[in-house]
Amino acid sequence: MIVGVVGGGQLARMMIPPAVALGVELRVLAESEGMSAALAATAVGDYRDAETVLAFAKDVDVVTFDHEHVPQDVLQQLVDAGVAVHPGPHALRFAQDKRQMRQRMAELGVAQPDWAPIDTADELQAFLDEHGGAAIVKTATGGYDGKGVRVVRGIDDVADWLQGAADGGPQLLAEELVAFRRELAQQVARRPSGEIVAWPLAQTVQRDGICAEVVVPAPHAGRMGAVAEDMAVRIAEGLDVTGALAVELFETEDGRLLVNELAMRPHNSGHWSIDGSITSQFEQHLRAVLDLPLGSSAMLAPAAVMINVIGGPAEGRMEARYAKALAAQPSAKVHSYSKTARPGRKVGHVTVVGDELDEVVYQARAAAATFE
Amino acid sequence: MIVGVVGGGQLARMMIPPAVALGVELRVLAESEGMSAALAATAVGDYRDAETVLAFAKDVDVVTFDHEHVPQDVLQQLVDAGVAVHPGPHALRFAQDKRQMRQRMAELGVAQPDWAPIDTADELQAFLDEHGGAAIVKTATGGYDGKGVRVVRGIDDVADWLQGAADGGPQLLAEELVAFRRELAQQVARRPSGEIVAWPLAQTVQRDGICAEVVVPAPHAGRMGAVAEDMAVRIAEGLDVTGALAVELFETEDGRLLVNELAMRPHNSGHWSIDGSITSQFEQHLRAVLDLPLGSSAMLAPAAVMINVIGGPAEGRMEARYAKALAAQPSAKVHSYSKTARPGRKVGHVTVVGDELDEVVYQARAAAATFE
Repeated sequence: MIVGVVGGGQLARMMIPPAVALGVELRVLAESEGMSAALAATAVGDYRDAETVLAFAKDVDVVTFDHEHVPQDVLQQLVDAGVAVHPGPHALRFAQDKRQMRQRMAELGVAQPDWAPIDTADELQAFLDEHGGAAIVKTATGGYDGKGVRVVRGIDDVADWLQGAADGGPQLLAEELVAFRRELAQQVARRPSGEIVAWPLAQTVQRDGICAEVVVPAPHAGRMGAVAEDMAVRIAEGLDVTGALAVELFETEDGRLLVNELAMRPHNSGHWSIDGSITSQFEQHLRAVLDLPLGSSAMLAPAAVMINVIGGPAEGRMEARYAKALAAQPSAKVHSYSKTARPGRKVGHVTVVGDELDEVVYQARAAAATFE
Repeated sequence: MIVGVVGGGQLARMMIPPAVALGVELRVLAESEGMSAALAATAVGDYRDAETVLAFAKDVDVVTFDHEHVPQDVLQQLVDAGVAVHPGPHALRFAQDKRQMRQRMAELGVAQPDWAPIDTADELQAFLDEHGGAAIVKTATGGYDGKGVRVVRGIDDVADWLQGAADGGPQLLAEELVAFRRELAQQVARRPSGEIVAWPLAQTVQRDGICAEVVVPAPHAGRMGAVAEDMAVRIAEGLDVTGALAVELFETEDGRLLVNELAMRPHNSGHWSIDGSITSQFEQHLRAVLDLPLGSSAMLAPAAVMINVIGGPAEGRMEARYAKALAAQPSAKVHSYSKTARPGRKVGHVTVVGDELDEVVYQARAAAATFE
């Protein structure tokens, strides 16, 4: 069993441990030498180049992804060459293009913020007028971790993007500025043959557009857990997603769940599952894309908290702080992505699982703080 | 942080996942190409050749082991060259030579079976006469997985070994045939700076001299848990063991604990900890040999059961049975060592953790049986 992963970042890296456990051979096409998933890298090259990707995909049983940026024409050439690709291009396009995603959510009847495609300043002004003078404007493609997203109160705020779109750059869309109580994320994994498994609903806290902290299960979720699972299952089936799917959600102040974003890969909101679930999202993703039976998504403890290490220590590597961090928090599971510290960069994360949420949150925050 | 592991078997393989999580660079000196730990192999060569091992050890922070067979003179050359070696040769010799081990246990006052070094047939006959006509005879060096061990009722049963010893082959020792109720194993890990952590006592079942099944915590252990931990701590400190130490124990019919064997490395009786403990024996071993603070050894559930897959399926690889095994037991954690099936060979293991021992045992046995 050979799984080819396009992209050598930390998501590919975190597929290595379950691949080792299951005896799956992992082959990574990395963007450059020395990337986070270097241990499993069998090729270095440009994922936008069809020839590079086709050569990499030779002899693998399935191709999957560390990110969603492989162009549609490259994906289609893989499919045309008879390579199993999961998720397939027909699903991935909804993770690559937010206008297509919003349109498809509307067709599926899944609750989401008011939105409109925006091609001109007039269209944006009309949307602002209808929504109290404020909106979120996004580039339809290319955004991640808060990039490609702006809060807008007048067309001048995105004059550059409007001009860019007119000049053939990324298309734009506007979304209502949702008054939300908190953000949540629902993860599922789905096999090509249809089996689907959901993890408990996660509560996520974003800072500066980057996932900072995840608590599972989301406290005081009540029936929302079932509603979120139902939404994610409908999306996974409606879009024919294979592998891991994360549905980022807003919980509105009046208690509704609205779809914010989709990710068709292991997702930051699911890193807790490495240490907190019988089957981690990374193992489940491998099983799903190989069309193997999925594992139990039950939690190993009543509460799990994951904190990202963003930026990292002045010494340049998380490892420099291990003597202090590991001594202070012997229950913390520390994950380093073998990246050099840089402001705003995700260089690792810490997870703690246990019986008492308060205690778990304290330990996880204390351990993660050691690395700042 | 770079850890060099001599030996490319499944124990080295199972160090890869925690090394990836912690950002530790693992370098393996494998005996040949395509071994179980091939993913981390940076060199292939003979661990009995000092030049090979010294070249491998260049630039690593510490050398540790997949097995205990590296000759003392090679180990000593590493130490003389300034390489950190954990466990060190002064400790490892007690895992390499059962006569030295028995002598040292006696000096430490640790309970063990009656025993005697055997150099001649007369000495063996005297030991048999003193012990009801039966004994266990072992080669002091070179034995593993039931090899180098015989039940003996007369000197003719080991005439070949006696001749071998006289001709300069492995030395021999005799041990009383212990009437035991069951076998147990106590694992600890110890840092060079002295910190030591113990896991719960494990109950082990051997078949044909090979570890077949492990239940943790050992049922109905009562005070034996504390006694076993005390023994293992005294041994680890008395022998200055660094890294993982497993103490195999007999529980006698009259309720005493006697030391059977020692292993100074991650041990089959601790594989359950990958899925059942906050810190696995493999992560703990890496932390210990790097002299990093040790992690919590608390269990993630009240019961854990590990079953070895011995031999493996007729199709040659465990993976051939995944569709059936994973579907039937979604909570089972299946570990493949990427080895081809062969009678008597450990090719993988299955662990299940949960609240109810009966249920956990059933699931683990059912999953493991799929691979036979």
